[in-house]
Amino acid sequence: MANITKKVSWSSRGDESALVGEETPLLNGSEQPRPLRQMSSGNTIFQIDRLSTVDLEEEITTEEDPGRGRPNEIPHNEKLLSLKFESLDYDNIENQLFLEEERRMSFMSFRCLEISRWVICGLIGFLTGLIACFIDIVVEQLAGIKYKVIKENIVKFTEAGGLSISLILWAGLNSSFVMLGAVMVAFFEPIAAGSGIPQIKCYLNGIKIPRVVRLKTLVIKVCGVICSVVGGLAVGKEGPMIHSGAVVAAGVSQGRSTSLKRDFKIFEYFRRDTEKRDFVSAGAAAGVSAAFGAPVGGVLFALEEGASFWNQMLTWRIFFASMISTFTLNFFLSIYHNKPGDLSNPGLINFGRFESEAMAYNLYEIPLFIAMGAVGGILGALFNFLNYWLTIFRIRYVHRPCLQVMEAMLVAAVTATVAFTMIYFSTDCQPLGPDHTEEYPLQLFCADGEYNSMATAFFNTPERSVRSLFHNPRGTYNSLTLGLFTLTYFLLACWTYGLAVSAGVFIPSLLIGAAWGRLCGILLASTTSTASMWADPGKYALIGAAAQLGGIVRMTLSLTVIMVEATGNVTYGLPIMLVLMTAKIVGDYFQEGLYDIHIKLQSVPFLHWEAPATSHWLIAREVMSSPVTCLNRIEKVGTIVDILSNTSTNHNGFPVVVQVSADDEPAKLCGLILRSQLIVLLKHKVFVELARTRLTQRKLQLKDFRDAYPRFPPIQSIHVSQDERECMMDLTEFMNPTPYTVPLETSLPRVFKLFRALGLRHLVVVDDENRVVGLVTRKDLARYHLGKHGLEELQLAQT
Amino acid sequence: MANITKKVSWSSRGDESALVGEETPLLNGSEQPRPLRQMSSGNTIFQIDRLSTVDLEEEITTEEDPGRGRPNEIPHNEKLLSLKFESLDYDNIENQLFLEEERRMSFMSFRCLEISRWVICGLIGFLTGLIACFIDIVVEQLAGIKYKVIKENIVKFTEAGGLSISLILWAGLNSSFVMLGAVMVAFFEPIAAGSGIPQIKCYLNGIKIPRVVRLKTLVIKVCGVICSVVGGLAVGKEGPMIHSGAVVAAGVSQGRSTSLKRDFKIFEYFRRDTEKRDFVSAGAAAGVSAAFGAPVGGVLFALEEGASFWNQMLTWRIFFASMISTFTLNFFLSIYHNKPGDLSNPGLINFGRFESEAMAYNLYEIPLFIAMGAVGGILGALFNFLNYWLTIFRIRYVHRPCLQVMEAMLVAAVTATVAFTMIYFSTDCQPLGPDHTEEYPLQLFCADGEYNSMATAFFNTPERSVRSLFHNPRGTYNSLTLGLFTLTYFLLACWTYGLAVSAGVFIPSLLIGAAWGRLCGILLASTTSTASMWADPGKYALIGAAAQLGGIVRMTLSLTVIMVEATGNVTYGLPIMLVLMTAKIVGDYFQEGLYDIHIKLQSVPFLHWEAPATSHWLIAREVMSSPVTCLNRIEKVGTIVDILSNTSTNHNGFPVVVQVSADDEPAKLCGLILRSQLIVLLKHKVFVELARTRLTQRKLQLKDFRDAYPRFPPIQSIHVSQDERECMMDLTEFMNPTPYTVPLETSLPRVFKLFRALGLRHLVVVDDENRVVGLVTRKDLARYHLGKHGLEELQLAQT
Repeated sequence: MANITKKVSWSSRGDESALVGEETPLLNGSEQPRPLRQMSSGNTIFQIDRLSTVDLEEEITTEEDPGRGRPNEIPHNEKLLSLKFESLDYDNIENQLFLEEERRMSFMSFRCLEISRWVICGLIGFLTGLIACFIDIVVEQLAGIKYKVIKENIVKFTEAGGLSISLILWAGLNSSFVMLGAVMVAFFEPIAAGSGIPQIKCYLNGIKIPRVVRLKTLVIKVCGVICSVVGGLAVGKEGPMIHSGAVVAAGVSQGRSTSLKRDFKIFEYFRRDTEKRDFVSAGAAAGVSAAFGAPVGGVLFALEEGASFWNQMLTWRIFFASMISTFTLNFFLSIYHNKPGDLSNPGLINFGRFESEAMAYNLYEIPLFIAMGAVGGILGALFNFLNYWLTIFRIRYVHRPCLQVMEAMLVAAVTATVAFTMIYFSTDCQPLGPDHTEEYPLQLFCADGEYNSMATAFFNTPERSVRSLFHNPRGTYNSLTLGLFTLTYFLLACWTYGLAVSAGVFIPSLLIGAAWGRLCGILLASTTSTASMWADPGKYALIGAAAQLGGIVRMTLSLTVIMVEATGNVTYGLPIMLVLMTAKIVGDYFQEGLYDIHIKLQSVPFLHWEAPATSHWLIAREVMSSPVTCLNRIEKVGTIVDILSNTSTNHNGFPVVVQVSADDEPAKLCGLILRSQLIVLLKHKVFVELARTRLTQRKLQLKDFRDAYPRFPPIQSIHVSQDERECMMDLTEFMNPTPYTVPLETSLPRVFKLFRALGLRHLVVVDDENRVVGLVTRKDLARYHLGKHGLEELQLAQT
Repeated sequence: MANITKKVSWSSRGDESALVGEETPLLNGSEQPRPLRQMSSGNTIFQIDRLSTVDLEEEITTEEDPGRGRPNEIPHNEKLLSLKFESLDYDNIENQLFLEEERRMSFMSFRCLEISRWVICGLIGFLTGLIACFIDIVVEQLAGIKYKVIKENIVKFTEAGGLSISLILWAGLNSSFVMLGAVMVAFFEPIAAGSGIPQIKCYLNGIKIPRVVRLKTLVIKVCGVICSVVGGLAVGKEGPMIHSGAVVAAGVSQGRSTSLKRDFKIFEYFRRDTEKRDFVSAGAAAGVSAAFGAPVGGVLFALEEGASFWNQMLTWRIFFASMISTFTLNFFLSIYHNKPGDLSNPGLINFGRFESEAMAYNLYEIPLFIAMGAVGGILGALFNFLNYWLTIFRIRYVHRPCLQVMEAMLVAAVTATVAFTMIYFSTDCQPLGPDHTEEYPLQLFCADGEYNSMATAFFNTPERSVRSLFHNPRGTYNSLTLGLFTLTYFLLACWTYGLAVSAGVFIPSLLIGAAWGRLCGILLASTTSTASMWADPGKYALIGAAAQLGGIVRMTLSLTVIMVEATGNVTYGLPIMLVLMTAKIVGDYFQEGLYDIHIKLQSVPFLHWEAPATSHWLIAREVMSSPVTCLNRIEKVGTIVDILSNTSTNHNGFPVVVQVSADDEPAKLCGLILRSQLIVLLKHKVFVELARTRLTQRKLQLKDFRDAYPRFPPIQSIHVSQDERECMMDLTEFMNPTPYTVPLETSLPRVFKLFRALGLRHLVVVDDENRVVGLVTRKDLARYHLGKHGLEELQLAQT
């Protein structure tokens, strides 16, 4: 786990931040971490001088291409926290402008706002449902054509010999589709890679991930996921729905598209982080809801991943969006399937009907389920471990777009080849029933009226395969088929996750789990004489699927509800919960969850639910960043420009004080102002003493800030003349006069709780006379984490 | 809605608070509310001088009985906020003692704590499930005997004539059971009356309701609910389960029973408000889960009613408790029903199996459902309106325990009489099918092989009646039966809610709704020629039940999930959600929810989710209470005793300042200490200068505070000698050195958000030099609410 060089696919581009495009001052220090303090309880803390020394790998390849704005190669380490990620501000900036607006508003205006929030949530649900429907139909059509072509080809060559031609056709078709998807992702929008769930988790956690909620990302995500699923990769189309829903929400709620340069002049009130983040929660929930037909699961997902402050009305709106989303999908799919009004397709994946009688579980089966949960936890940890190393490898060696595309194509070809080989050598023939659910049964070398059982698992979209494993009658698969399938699909899925294609890991996990779960069921039935006791292997397939998925992603409450809703049967609540809990406990013992690993590898300052348990001995004085750059209430323009242009500090929030004294004594706090606000002020040249200038001195309004949101220009793009530098700026009206503060002695858990519960971006630390002595930001809190040697401190890096 | 005199059944008794037993200084003022300020947007605020003038009715009957500690008659007004209710402190008191303990603890100790939390939640779930099981079995047995006796009697007298004897038997039996229940509640524990949901709502909102989580309350609640259900009242046994679960949780988590004087010396760490409140959430969720077989619904109920700060681990533990609870109930019921291992009875109420095919709904039915939701909202508002006036009447005239018992018996007798009359005059005879679900079919005047259809609705436990309405085949009921049943049951249920018996309103609401819902279904089928279009009246019964329940209680997300889980079929998610939403919107237009009405009538300072929308023009300076009684860091014992004994202020939290200056100038804040802490300090005589005394000066530990929790003795019980009064007390070690503060100019919504999100009890308002100028408590925030004339301010009263 040495320090490595990587490409930051989530990093900022030139238009996102004032920092990008700058040469960040990377210092190559060989200083060893030195113990900061030795605690009685054995907590040792390692700290590196902040902002100054960063362990770097030698091989810093600075392959810069400023024209296309491609991110630099940056040093990377999972023990590092990137300073580049900015926080979202969940705290309203209650400055004079804002308060004046709020006070002008009547009760009716607030009611109208409330109604628009509902309308937006309805729209989010509707559009997310439509997108899900679009993906579903296109995938089904394209995959249908693909499987038909290949099947005909196989049938043709089975008799004549020369099946290698079929193999080449299959691999070629897959690779072409995947190439298309990978090219889009790798060359046009790397952020659209993967499921997008880690990114949305970060966004809901309060971190601004550049470009993650843009229209372009959505388009590439949708096209990309179609290509990868049709390309036969071991992926699902469910995860990306969550990302898609979030993008839809971010777009709809702002009433404009910056990419398309269209402003509909509606919903202007919602153009700030607080409101946008709420809507993005709703979008993510709508995405989950459309993907799994699980509206309640969607709400819980949004809560589990995002909300720190639970708000009843917000939750109810999120639920509304989720409901509309699954309903829209259901409705349009019912029309597509020529059964209008039939509402039995609530999600992209449909686990099929679990009849209560056939599938009822008994009390004595619960220990078995728990054991399967443990197996799922172990397999999940193994999956994550392999994927972790693979990701490190990719970061190190496969960072050029063309290499990424080639790797994706290779995986597609290998997947097809492996599948073909397995089918070819499989001797598991099953009779073709009259009511068979196989869409594309392959006869191959089986007798007439029979089909190859391995092909049902491989020669099919993964969603169909999952459903077959859950519901096909006993005896459909033999154990060897299932065992081999589990092994190969496990490795393929592990290899696939992290490729530069948009695709999710939910369905492959379910498929792996369903396969070994069904295998367990079959083995149980064969070892006991009373086969009827173990009524249905499908039940074990379901439990296995839950265990495997839980072991990989480590979601808890929301996943339970999602699984229960997807099965449409609440009876399975308890076993699924027990299984997921076991899988999580066992898995956490070995390795973190897959999403957390990927978040960590991106050095994102992610805030967990609570401060580390043993962090009570840290106080705000030690945690905070200091000294703080403060501004006077009436400040010289030149000073402001200089401070904003200083790339070595690059602060985003500045406490406003009554008067900065000459000798660096701390001064009394009277407010807080953000970089983005200062930028808008500078841009509109709201200066006080305008000697000899023709500048309009129109009063700035909230609208000006909202118009600039969220892509505030960098300071470099604002020209301030030498005369203007001498002017003064009065910040009184624009600063937040009542920022939250904590005293110096506040313990870290207390600071953490305040920060997390209110979704703050900056928390001012004051002494007992209300003078500014420090500033706590997200990175100051995210630094501390429980490692193997007790409390550890991550290093901060500009990159 | 004049001011009225009432008995505060929730008020404190002598052992709960330093205030009770005091003559509270009630001032009879006739001052009219005077407009405080006229806002541009038309907001007028009415304010009465705080703490000084309280509108009182003349008839203050001071029927005091200090020996038994019965609460006084107190003046009462729904526009009043009682100062008597204290807040729970969800904020940890991070004083030196606490921090030292936390810092001494190793990571393993924290892990052990975490494990004990899980164990406690498991225990809570298990015990709650057992209690539910006990209630269910006892009710079934007793009701079985009752119905059998009456049925035999009716059969005997149907032929012979003289059915009036049957009526007398029925009414007599019912009255006796109800009398038993009412005597227990009215004479021994008035807090056990009703469903307990309003009280638990308040508790989870952060208000300390005296005696609500005591063992005695639980025992009387359980016995009371059995009596009222067996007594044939229009009540359910589901609501009380939520209260029971909460009591179990509060007991188990503290590892001791103060009532039984047993301390098991375990779980001592959890003896503070923060932890206890978390466990009570789990208990309430377990209660919901056991009542409706709805573990997810339980979690959402706990969140919707309680949690302000969402914590993933906490929620997961709550879910665990819920799962264990429903599982325990299911398991023991399956043994009781001689089908061990059959897990089909997840809750006390079981809606029966809704098969997807028969009950599928079509798109064109959705407008119908929404219309039914509106009807439910209107009927619910009517129910609440009638019940509101009835409650006022009861507060005014029916406040003596013996009167309450008599009223309860009267209702029981009337219920039996009405039911009997309806059955008697009903001519709706239905053939007795071979697979009839009727437990006690009454033939009465029907032909042989037929039974009286009205009797299935009335001559049955309400749970069974609901199930019959949902599932009996078409034609089981005729419209007249249903219409009459709806009308009478509506009035009976409305009369019953608020009696001095423990019983819930969920089941009667469902029953009323199911009746008129089924009526709608029947009418629809009869008006259209294609009867098959409206496949099943049971579907409409379900929608009607949801609409009626939603119209009465106005719960949203949790109720949707509870209904979905109770039907066991996720297909109904969307219609149920739409119906509940419509019912809530329509109902809220007319009248508040039933629980909110009852909370308001108790003058509880309930904090809603957000500050009123139009309250941005209020700032902390106007909201806070001032002047504040501050203490010095080293304070004279005499001063502390005097301050604590001052009944006219009765503050519970005191800012600690560096030095109170002589001329009432505000001094710098350095901490916050609670009345309860001071009491413990005084009790243990932790004084600094102990001249000529033999007092042990042992160091006080956290354990001393925990042992005293939660029933801190009143100041009057602590004897402080004249010598001791001259000693000093050093508060440094015990005060919370980092209380949350806000500046004077903070807007009300901002103060509200901080207060609510962190579950605070006291929020110190400081000026720009960190000097204490005011204190914001729950009552200061709860005062403001949106009335008909814009923002209104409630009056505060000592009572």
